[in-house]
Amino acid sequence: MRCFVTGGAGFIGSNLADRLLSRGEEVVVFDNFSTGFEEFLADAGKKPGFTLVRGDLLDLPAVEDAMEGCGFVFHMAANADVRYGTLHPQKDLEQNTLATFNVLEAMRANGIKKIAFPSTGSIYGEPEIFPTPEAAPFPVQTSLYGASKLSAEGLIQAYCEGFGFSGWIFRFVSILGERYTHGHVFDFYKCLSNDPGHLHILGDGRQRKSYLYVHDCIDAMLLAVEKARDKINIFNLGVDSYCTVDASVGWITEYLSLSPRLTHAGGKRGWTGDSPFVFLDTAKIFSLGWKPRLTIREGIMKTLKWLGENRWVMERRE
Amino acid sequence: MRCFVTGGAGFIGSNLADRLLSRGEEVVVFDNFSTGFEEFLADAGKKPGFTLVRGDLLDLPAVEDAMEGCGFVFHMAANADVRYGTLHPQKDLEQNTLATFNVLEAMRANGIKKIAFPSTGSIYGEPEIFPTPEAAPFPVQTSLYGASKLSAEGLIQAYCEGFGFSGWIFRFVSILGERYTHGHVFDFYKCLSNDPGHLHILGDGRQRKSYLYVHDCIDAMLLAVEKARDKINIFNLGVDSYCTVDASVGWITEYLSLSPRLTHAGGKRGWTGDSPFVFLDTAKIFSLGWKPRLTIREGIMKTLKWLGENRWVMERRE
Repeated sequence: MRCFVTGGAGFIGSNLADRLLSRGEEVVVFDNFSTGFEEFLADAGKKPGFTLVRGDLLDLPAVEDAMEGCGFVFHMAANADVRYGTLHPQKDLEQNTLATFNVLEAMRANGIKKIAFPSTGSIYGEPEIFPTPEAAPFPVQTSLYGASKLSAEGLIQAYCEGFGFSGWIFRFVSILGERYTHGHVFDFYKCLSNDPGHLHILGDGRQRKSYLYVHDCIDAMLLAVEKARDKINIFNLGVDSYCTVDASVGWITEYLSLSPRLTHAGGKRGWTGDSPFVFLDTAKIFSLGWKPRLTIREGIMKTLKWLGENRWVMERRE
Repeated sequence: MRCFVTGGAGFIGSNLADRLLSRGEEVVVFDNFSTGFEEFLADAGKKPGFTLVRGDLLDLPAVEDAMEGCGFVFHMAANADVRYGTLHPQKDLEQNTLATFNVLEAMRANGIKKIAFPSTGSIYGEPEIFPTPEAAPFPVQTSLYGASKLSAEGLIQAYCEGFGFSGWIFRFVSILGERYTHGHVFDFYKCLSNDPGHLHILGDGRQRKSYLYVHDCIDAMLLAVEKARDKINIFNLGVDSYCTVDASVGWITEYLSLSPRLTHAGGKRGWTGDSPFVFLDTAKIFSLGWKPRLTIREGIMKTLKWLGENRWVMERRE
């Protein structure tokens, strides 16, 4: 099978591309390198079934051309930033909503009918039920990022209904691991690299978060695509636990053998749209026989090890 | 208060504009007349507080200019067609999602922070709970129209959270009454005008639908805007009953004194994305002291009377 991976030069996308290639699939990576790195495709580039297309998802004809001959789309490209959404609302609209529309239209033009899509636990807004199940009460959006992912989910669902597509939608907690270049752990590591004596934490540090290791995430996605056969398949992906931001800071400073002075900005949320408690009900994906191999702490350790070995990432990611 | 009414030359928008003017508000109608009619603004045009701006919501600078000095936005403009969504997916994206984004950006540019928005019961997809409450389980979209309204709801909610807006979101059943130019009753009336001896009904005729009279709808919206003071206020709007499509056909043929031969296309749904059962839980809006004055049947009678007196609408609406 020839798989089309948008955002395939990014964190999760490039790990997915490697995995698909190792399974003997052909892979077409489509990426505009706005946040992806060529280095992440170094291994993939050596495989015979690999094709890299530099292009932008807002350029529909380019997407249509690149997708020709593919049988499955993993639409991993996104603006994955929640925190700065209000600085540039157009970005979530374009990179998430409009990009997804173009992916769907390019699929339609090419007669491709299967799509896997990483959504986010952020679309539950600030839920009242924990762990939060896929069928939680109709949520209210608290971020432009969440709104744009909700919009993309709705589009995919409507294409499944209207055009006979099959969709696999995954609502992720935060993902960690090799090639991680964005998020709490990245920010803390970078700050401590710059100033080992002090760490400033947004919010009161008691926000409860959940993290999943990237290879566990990819295992879950591929298992669901293989086993779940409804027209529209929606799965939460996460571990069955959570930690506080302060606890994760404790693990990070312990790993780095640092004892920085900690200060907190205060407040329940780190920023507008930050959910103070993320804990997804993963019974549905567990019922397919998947379970994560790494705990949150182990995932953070893997991430720190990789960041330590790849400090160039911190220099190139502002 | 100067109110900005997008789609103010349309069915619900023009009725709303008239109502606001009769209450002494100033009204700026912004409409591209893609589905609106100048005739619907004949009364409004005689009032001193009325301004008409011909423009397209996809033209952001034009929206920003027209909105200047307004204090409240009723964003009534939409592509309201569910049935033909798959013929032109771009239309729902542009007319509903992107248009709403531009309305929100124009509000931000003008420092306007209050918006009322007609969403739809279609965003519940095919729910399992009847009557369907606002906090129904997280729905799956079944139409491009529903997906685009969901997208617009999410954007409004994110702007409320991120930019301090207040939002009133109304999930409508089908609305009927004077200036109604679109939907079941319109289609049946038009077909029977062309061929009084035969009526073909999409689906099996047993689809259960709910309708609300336009002035009851406007009463509810204005009451909610006055009384509901949360950051984000979401209300289902409908009557507390439903009827089958066949029953509505019976009322229509009785009113017209016709006995057409009825044929049914068959199937639970009239078209892709048609929900076989629409019945919204309206306890929340009832709790504010609102109740509809007309039953479904009475609303249909009002509509038929108006269509009979305004046959020009059928000639000009393909």
